[in-house]
Amino acid sequence: MKALAIDLGGTHANCAIVEDHKILFSKRLDLDSAQVLGSVLPLFTSSFRELMSEARFATKDFAGLAMSTCGLVDSARARILSSPKKWDDAPGVDFVGWCRREFSLPMKMENDARMALMGERYAGTARGCNDLAMITLGTGIGTAVMIGGKLLHGKHFQAGNQGGHQPVVFNGRDCTCGGVGCAEAEAAGWALPQIARDWPRFRESLLAKEPAINYEILFRLAAEGDAVARAIQDRCIHVWAATAVGMIHAFDPEIVIFGGGVLESADLIIPFVQAHVNAHTWSPWGKAQIRAAELGNDAGLLGAVPLLSTN
Amino acid sequence: MKALAIDLGGTHANCAIVEDHKILFSKRLDLDSAQVLGSVLPLFTSSFRELMSEARFATKDFAGLAMSTCGLVDSARARILSSPKKWDDAPGVDFVGWCRREFSLPMKMENDARMALMGERYAGTARGCNDLAMITLGTGIGTAVMIGGKLLHGKHFQAGNQGGHQPVVFNGRDCTCGGVGCAEAEAAGWALPQIARDWPRFRESLLAKEPAINYEILFRLAAEGDAVARAIQDRCIHVWAATAVGMIHAFDPEIVIFGGGVLESADLIIPFVQAHVNAHTWSPWGKAQIRAAELGNDAGLLGAVPLLSTN
Repeated sequence: MKALAIDLGGTHANCAIVEDHKILFSKRLDLDSAQVLGSVLPLFTSSFRELMSEARFATKDFAGLAMSTCGLVDSARARILSSPKKWDDAPGVDFVGWCRREFSLPMKMENDARMALMGERYAGTARGCNDLAMITLGTGIGTAVMIGGKLLHGKHFQAGNQGGHQPVVFNGRDCTCGGVGCAEAEAAGWALPQIARDWPRFRESLLAKEPAINYEILFRLAAEGDAVARAIQDRCIHVWAATAVGMIHAFDPEIVIFGGGVLESADLIIPFVQAHVNAHTWSPWGKAQIRAAELGNDAGLLGAVPLLSTN
Repeated sequence: MKALAIDLGGTHANCAIVEDHKILFSKRLDLDSAQVLGSVLPLFTSSFRELMSEARFATKDFAGLAMSTCGLVDSARARILSSPKKWDDAPGVDFVGWCRREFSLPMKMENDARMALMGERYAGTARGCNDLAMITLGTGIGTAVMIGGKLLHGKHFQAGNQGGHQPVVFNGRDCTCGGVGCAEAEAAGWALPQIARDWPRFRESLLAKEPAINYEILFRLAAEGDAVARAIQDRCIHVWAATAVGMIHAFDPEIVIFGGGVLESADLIIPFVQAHVNAHTWSPWGKAQIRAAELGNDAGLLGAVPLLSTN
């Protein structure tokens, strides 16, 4: 099956032609200067026309268009319900109408965390697994859940999506979501600089000399022997492990996939989380397996075919 | 619809004849001296024969038998998968065969937390709601979830059932489940005596004079002005509120029901939890409602009719 696929973020988008497990052609769009999503649709149209011309495919060759986007998505109606601030007009954008008008194709939309799970299950580390959760560690912490081969959505499309907002320190740090002690507030990329600055002896750490602090710098300095970086790294991994325990106890999966750039250090993260899960989950049937994502940024695009194949 | 209903606990059971929203007749069995569950089945048989005789009903008047039990239940096969230690023989007991042999009736079984949710939805505080969670505060903390009108089970029947084992203090107290900082370890009845003894200035509190510490005593002494009891009470309610936030972010319900004996103090608990949820959950559609259970110990029995009506 061939599909058109869009992975829409806040600052850029990827448009692609996907065939089954492969991305055949793709084009990255810089959206830094775009103010509203309505103005981006013509860019998508022209990008897909270019890609189809390059690939010598016609619209009739495609089963449909699948779109992955951050924010809260009504996947039944292919509408964005709530989006990062930049796309204020998102809830009003009629993607289905646009896709029918431009390409005469059906379209489906899903939240990016769920699309990454779909991709990893279809073409990545969890092929064929029907009961799984995915945790993507980035600026925020995105999660998604599949139970019995079906994505979990819930009444308002939030179920399984808010694992980054499980309270792991019930009286902990304030979160951008309004929550307290959420996994994100305690260990996501956006929270890391403040967590570091609040750490005892931060000023003695090489972290204090960095103009910006992110996971990559933290893990590098920890590896170089910086004691504060090491302590913060250990605490973050511990919080991620507790987040996995929470997801397992909530959703009963057989596999929990960890994704995101910090998984460059999968050799540090995965064994710790697996040992923590083995020691601290209760599941008479056995223990959930912890795996690193395989598809990186392609996962959302590779979710296109399974999404379009779903009723 | 009429149903036979059993609510099986570790030390006693209730057998009842239920008609729609009403318990018509019931009988409590003390099981303290029973060693194995196999030996209890004849007691169930004779109890139901007594009740039917009293009610002047015959087996043909009933749609089936529904059983609520603590522990992990395979509701597809009506088998107990894992039970409190006392009933070591539980996984081998063929309830379906017993029920057919004795009463020629179909039978269904469900975990007690899920049955309480079914009861409250059918005859209690959440009538007609299709998306809800229930948190029962007792010796442990039992939870259950319904999404889109269907009980959530998961691959191994654990989904939605383990809300008491969400880590709310990721580096907190050890839990009996093997977990760390679970809601149960931080605020369940079984953990309360140790939490109190570990509290600073415990010896100055009236709690130190109590031979046993439970929620009832804690709330009474807090009301009488005991500062330590008040601080522990506040912390427990805070943990329960965080548990509700976790359930809402995980499962996207419209109503979260709190049940259990401590809800005698619903006037203290429910407003705090509702305010905490209003302030600390992210849900663009509105805020989940926090409600006190209405049916008390009858909820599990009153889940019988809706359970037997489910495909």
